[in-house]
Amino acid sequence: MIEEKGILFVLSGPSGVGKGTVRKALFSQKTDLKYSISMTTREKRPGEQEGVDYFFKSKEDFETLIEQKQLLEYAKYVNNYYGTPRNYVEKTLAAGHDVFLEIEVQGALQVRENFPEGVFIFLFPPSLEELKNRILHRGTETEELVLNRLKEARKEIEMMDAYDYVVVNDDVGFAVSKIQAIIQSEHLRRERIAKQYKRILEDEL
Amino acid sequence: MIEEKGILFVLSGPSGVGKGTVRKALFSQKTDLKYSISMTTREKRPGEQEGVDYFFKSKEDFETLIEQKQLLEYAKYVNNYYGTPRNYVEKTLAAGHDVFLEIEVQGALQVRENFPEGVFIFLFPPSLEELKNRILHRGTETEELVLNRLKEARKEIEMMDAYDYVVVNDDVGFAVSKIQAIIQSEHLRRERIAKQYKRILEDEL
Repeated sequence: MIEEKGILFVLSGPSGVGKGTVRKALFSQKTDLKYSISMTTREKRPGEQEGVDYFFKSKEDFETLIEQKQLLEYAKYVNNYYGTPRNYVEKTLAAGHDVFLEIEVQGALQVRENFPEGVFIFLFPPSLEELKNRILHRGTETEELVLNRLKEARKEIEMMDAYDYVVVNDDVGFAVSKIQAIIQSEHLRRERIAKQYKRILEDEL
Repeated sequence: MIEEKGILFVLSGPSGVGKGTVRKALFSQKTDLKYSISMTTREKRPGEQEGVDYFFKSKEDFETLIEQKQLLEYAKYVNNYYGTPRNYVEKTLAAGHDVFLEIEVQGALQVRENFPEGVFIFLFPPSLEELKNRILHRGTETEELVLNRLKEARKEIEMMDAYDYVVVNDDVGFAVSKIQAIIQSEHLRRERIAKQYKRILEDEL
């Protein structure tokens, strides 16, 4: 009855908060969400598929897309670019599907800049103590690195004000059901759907 | 962990859309919502309790409260006043409980004026045809009355723009679960809770 565009949902939060775990739990359930596929300049690895794992591009092509503002966000790691192509997101939304993007805070702030109509969800640690434990228990990092990442995390939490929702990740299942409630209720927001409802009325008058 | 004020949720919509049915179905489930108790100047009927069914007031007292802007909305039917006392709502919210108000469109617009921080949900008929059927099937009204009420309903639907959410009442169960998603997600909105989260961080730093 209602023909509706999809909504871009962006899940973000400080390093170590558990964004990936929550995203995986969300997608392990029945969902109509489309996961946003990133673009990269790194080499395709065995088994990876173009348009499934990544969109693979040359460095030159990627830099052209940056100039043309065709990326909602991008960053460079170890000499390779990674980014979110605007074109894929917009086509998917136009087809009526929601797009879900899980991304670190700097990337989310870029997306907010380039696509303010998205819905931005900040995943909040149950406590800084807990966040420290999670970063420590990865076990792969020196104490100095851990302290740096904690400092970074505190700075990232200060950026909460750029988000629409805050979900505390005290329990993955609770966090997922809160995100599902946000997705459902955002589709009910009057400013998104009033036009279509009024059109229905006009058709009937 | 988070000390939070309650939120006022206002369910409204055109005459005949099924507000009362949806409200009853919502309250028949486990809920922490407090139903907003109205104030009236009509006579207390046998079995009715002060502060449970209504707050009963004299006409003089009610008019004093109107002058003092102590009512979020009010109307006069058959020589009696009915209204929503601001004091009860504010005390209940301050105690951390959500308040739920089911009300016709004119009343909701008054509440919006006097309490803009409320969340306003518009219950939408599946179609005007369906709305007509529902009004007709009450069976208590003449054709002229039905036509008048439909005309009124169309005008009320035009007022949708004053609302935050639109929920179509095609199925009572669906409508209730949508309202529950709205209630849950409104508690996650960053502007409501960011201050408390930042305080937690400061306490830990």
